[in-house]
Amino acid sequence: MTELLDPPTATDPADPSTRVESWLRDFEDALTARDTGRAASLFAPTSFWRDLVSFTWNITTVEDPAGVETLLDDVLDRVDPSAFTLTEPATEADGVVEAWIAFETGVGRGKGHLRLTDEGAWTLLTSLRELKGHEENQGETRPQGVSHELSKGRPSWKEERDAEEADLGHGTQPYALVIGGGQGGIALGARLRQLGVPALVVDRHDRPGDQWRSRYKSLCLHDPVWYDHLPYLPFPKNWPVFAPKDKVGDWLEMYTRVMEVPYWSRSTVRSATFDEAAGTWSVTVERDGESIELRPTQLVFATGMSGKANVPELPGQDVFAGEQQHSSQHPGPEAYSGKKVVVIGSNNSAFDICGALWENDADVTMVQRSSTHIVKSASLMDIGLGDLYSERAVEAGVTTEKADMIFASLPYRIMHEFQIPLYEQMAERDADFYQRLESAGFDHDWGDDGSGLFMKYLRRGSGYYIDVGAAELVADGRVKLAHGQVDHLTETSVVLADGTELEADLVVYATGYGSMNGWVADIVDQDTAARVGKCWGLGSETTKDPGPWEGEQRNMWKPTQVENLWMHGGNLHQSRHYSLYLALQLKARYEGIPTPVHGLQEVHHTT
Amino acid sequence: MTELLDPPTATDPADPSTRVESWLRDFEDALTARDTGRAASLFAPTSFWRDLVSFTWNITTVEDPAGVETLLDDVLDRVDPSAFTLTEPATEADGVVEAWIAFETGVGRGKGHLRLTDEGAWTLLTSLRELKGHEENQGETRPQGVSHELSKGRPSWKEERDAEEADLGHGTQPYALVIGGGQGGIALGARLRQLGVPALVVDRHDRPGDQWRSRYKSLCLHDPVWYDHLPYLPFPKNWPVFAPKDKVGDWLEMYTRVMEVPYWSRSTVRSATFDEAAGTWSVTVERDGESIELRPTQLVFATGMSGKANVPELPGQDVFAGEQQHSSQHPGPEAYSGKKVVVIGSNNSAFDICGALWENDADVTMVQRSSTHIVKSASLMDIGLGDLYSERAVEAGVTTEKADMIFASLPYRIMHEFQIPLYEQMAERDADFYQRLESAGFDHDWGDDGSGLFMKYLRRGSGYYIDVGAAELVADGRVKLAHGQVDHLTETSVVLADGTELEADLVVYATGYGSMNGWVADIVDQDTAARVGKCWGLGSETTKDPGPWEGEQRNMWKPTQVENLWMHGGNLHQSRHYSLYLALQLKARYEGIPTPVHGLQEVHHTT
Repeated sequence: MTELLDPPTATDPADPSTRVESWLRDFEDALTARDTGRAASLFAPTSFWRDLVSFTWNITTVEDPAGVETLLDDVLDRVDPSAFTLTEPATEADGVVEAWIAFETGVGRGKGHLRLTDEGAWTLLTSLRELKGHEENQGETRPQGVSHELSKGRPSWKEERDAEEADLGHGTQPYALVIGGGQGGIALGARLRQLGVPALVVDRHDRPGDQWRSRYKSLCLHDPVWYDHLPYLPFPKNWPVFAPKDKVGDWLEMYTRVMEVPYWSRSTVRSATFDEAAGTWSVTVERDGESIELRPTQLVFATGMSGKANVPELPGQDVFAGEQQHSSQHPGPEAYSGKKVVVIGSNNSAFDICGALWENDADVTMVQRSSTHIVKSASLMDIGLGDLYSERAVEAGVTTEKADMIFASLPYRIMHEFQIPLYEQMAERDADFYQRLESAGFDHDWGDDGSGLFMKYLRRGSGYYIDVGAAELVADGRVKLAHGQVDHLTETSVVLADGTELEADLVVYATGYGSMNGWVADIVDQDTAARVGKCWGLGSETTKDPGPWEGEQRNMWKPTQVENLWMHGGNLHQSRHYSLYLALQLKARYEGIPTPVHGLQEVHHTT
Repeated sequence: MTELLDPPTATDPADPSTRVESWLRDFEDALTARDTGRAASLFAPTSFWRDLVSFTWNITTVEDPAGVETLLDDVLDRVDPSAFTLTEPATEADGVVEAWIAFETGVGRGKGHLRLTDEGAWTLLTSLRELKGHEENQGETRPQGVSHELSKGRPSWKEERDAEEADLGHGTQPYALVIGGGQGGIALGARLRQLGVPALVVDRHDRPGDQWRSRYKSLCLHDPVWYDHLPYLPFPKNWPVFAPKDKVGDWLEMYTRVMEVPYWSRSTVRSATFDEAAGTWSVTVERDGESIELRPTQLVFATGMSGKANVPELPGQDVFAGEQQHSSQHPGPEAYSGKKVVVIGSNNSAFDICGALWENDADVTMVQRSSTHIVKSASLMDIGLGDLYSERAVEAGVTTEKADMIFASLPYRIMHEFQIPLYEQMAERDADFYQRLESAGFDHDWGDDGSGLFMKYLRRGSGYYIDVGAAELVADGRVKLAHGQVDHLTETSVVLADGTELEADLVVYATGYGSMNGWVADIVDQDTAARVGKCWGLGSETTKDPGPWEGEQRNMWKPTQVENLWMHGGNLHQSRHYSLYLALQLKARYEGIPTPVHGLQEVHHTT
């Protein structure tokens, strides 16, 4: 994922570190002189500058010298960047110099990553790491835990925590309310706590981690442990590669407690309206049966990047005598032993559910409606993630923070070019497997442009399965396969467009999810949801990711068109990494630091 | 603590690494040739070899070439050591070369630390880190978490855990039963779990961590965070320097869960007898009101190094009308606002309790019966621990493992020599404080030989206070001070030997604890307790640590005179580090690996 494709050839004889230092000096000189044209000329004709909140108070990528100049013309005076330094020796491979850098702005300290060719900067990543005067208390500045001066009436840590908990939402209002307490909400809550932003995470389940515990029993993470660490507290070295869902649940519960994340369980947000005059939201939360009115300034939707369940409306659903459920409601296979089950869909959830049902002796048929991309988990781990997130990467000094930054440094515009050869390798390695799958009639694809799973995830968040075993069941017919759209249901069966009739005691709609802004429609209103617009996706003009090109994932972790409303989500990797930038954006607003947004995205799609 | 006192002068011109490698080669050659005299001659005339389980299946120190030869004569054939290597460049300071080494034995892999002078090896530490063929599954070998081959009836992780829990102690017997689930029992339980030794930790409290939660409310750890990490899962960077007791409690509870330590709460061990014929213990545990018979092979007392409470028997205790309690039973100050409290004793617990009572407006008198050593926490952290356990040490690359090994490499015989100058520094730094304290009539000492707090801890586990604020209350009279032994109690007062009468509503006996083998007397029998003998202490012939010299802490983490009975305990540092060696000793026995013990200690004191 980190190799470069057809990079320009290097001819500069200077050593990589010297070249980087020279470039940084030129760049800083131009910036200090406010000469945006000169700064832009230091970028290659085809080049990408991705900024995570440090220059733009936005997550945005600009392209080529022209894009760089436009960005700088807007922000340079107010950002006042300085102190660009190389933080470790630069390296060179295939004509591209790679370097880790640090810098400052007027209000913060940043880190970055730079790729230089003979033509200039090819990729630049800049990211805000902390706000001056608002650094997190860690290491040398960690809290003392106790004052060594005794005084009468001094409260204990527990008394302070209990008082804070009792007061929060009643006396003291959270500045930021985070709706949804899965890994996204918890990671953000932990960061806000460390940054001293009064926040509250609310979640409808009984306790943190139930988001995972409540799912079907055989579920394990499909991503490996190195990719899944939360901020501050990495998993121990004995943690399984693919953690079982109940173990993930225990970890999240423990994490919430020891990181002191303010968290209300059994709490459902019923409605939220923005009070323009007060500049705060009015949010109705039902907590354990009691209705509570909160007045947060910032509202964060961390309700799951998958958004709301899509359940198709089909003729005959009202006459079907068996059970029907969306995949997200599927309780697990135990009750369906010996039953006939039809699973509509052929992506991750469909495969996981089919596999677990088969293991529990159900008679299972998968209905494939459109082609699906499948990669074997081991191949994905090795070829797709191994350079950044693996024991091998750890051994090679690629810390989680470095891996996240390398990952973030690859411009979305050309990311598919890096991905295609990886999936070509996987196709070759697992050729037998794909042969068997296709012989069984499975309609397999590699993405519109052959760029595989990760691009599908970024573009549409669907259309794939990381094979953790169930694909073999389809390949050899243990799980039956049918094709086409569902035409209607009868009292006892599912009838497909071609007339095929599948008897069923249970129909599972593994039919995916809508855009996250569906939650906004439910909780705020349809108009606000439309103003936020579609979430996720890059505008790649591939299937289910309509253009125009956005340059970044729509609406995620950055300002939306609705002030004081934010979207947070994604897998554990994204929850870890991007929660930092979202937390810093909220912290700056909480502290009254000006946060003029450069390049606020337009809304091109409302759902 | 790591500086050396008057070391021999170095004249060897070779670089440190070369000297170490040469020494290791000579040592290994002599060992391979089974020439114990030659091996012993590589040690300086005054020298120390401390072995943690790798050569001796014991924790033991031998001295000088003669001691080395005796040790090797006994163990060399069966240990079969090899592959001595230098693991990183050696360093030299003040004529002493320091080096980190690795080696193997027939059954295991070890790490060590070596100090060389011109005269040869001055100190050698050898420690067993893992048993061949029984390595912990970490990093590259961590568990997968899920099989990617589906099969019918495959249980989930949670089903497996639930079944294991339901079966443990009923169907399956624990190989090792750990009595006491504080930090010691939990750390050992976690290691046994990782090593695949069936174990069970039982504890009388409602949940893990209540050992801390149940104590007086102002309690915080007196040791700093860098000293307190548990195995596998270090505290995060934002953890307070001195963690409040409820936060420690939360951490222990969560640690127990995420490390999957088999743990029974609300379980009290009523009795244990060893069944010679079966080779197992018969242990009666009352679990949540139900009596359960367990048959473990190994019995570990992790009941607290402080052992059982010492409550003096005094005339008039039966007529005193107020409350009397041992410090360990003190519920905290809340109920005693406005009351007169007499605290008998002047060590850690006495000061902590006096401080908290004063903060809650009690009228407090401390009765000092003998002199006490006090150091200010900040000075102890900086001067006493800073080189090994501090942010500065972390920055300098002294990992927790390295710090533990450096600490362990200092021979107990001469440790006080390293300590004395540190306490001289503290005396100078805090001269004003000691002046005020003594002016207030407080009887202060620096240990029999001026070696201060840590030696008192190792020798007797008492006689000191790490000042976290309460000493100032005594110095300025906010807490009153009285002196001498208690003669008797009246209905309303405590009367001292000199006739001083102190009115009291509450008397707190902060009178310390007996030897840990008191627990053995209670649970097994008096005879077995006497066979185990006194626990803790070095035989230093200083106050409360009678000779003869033992070389190691009596009975801790190593074989006792009672087979299959072990003592485990100490502060968080010791619980972390020594639990490894105890766990490996238990693992070897569980696997049937021969564990002949070299130098099993004799019992010189029964209590």
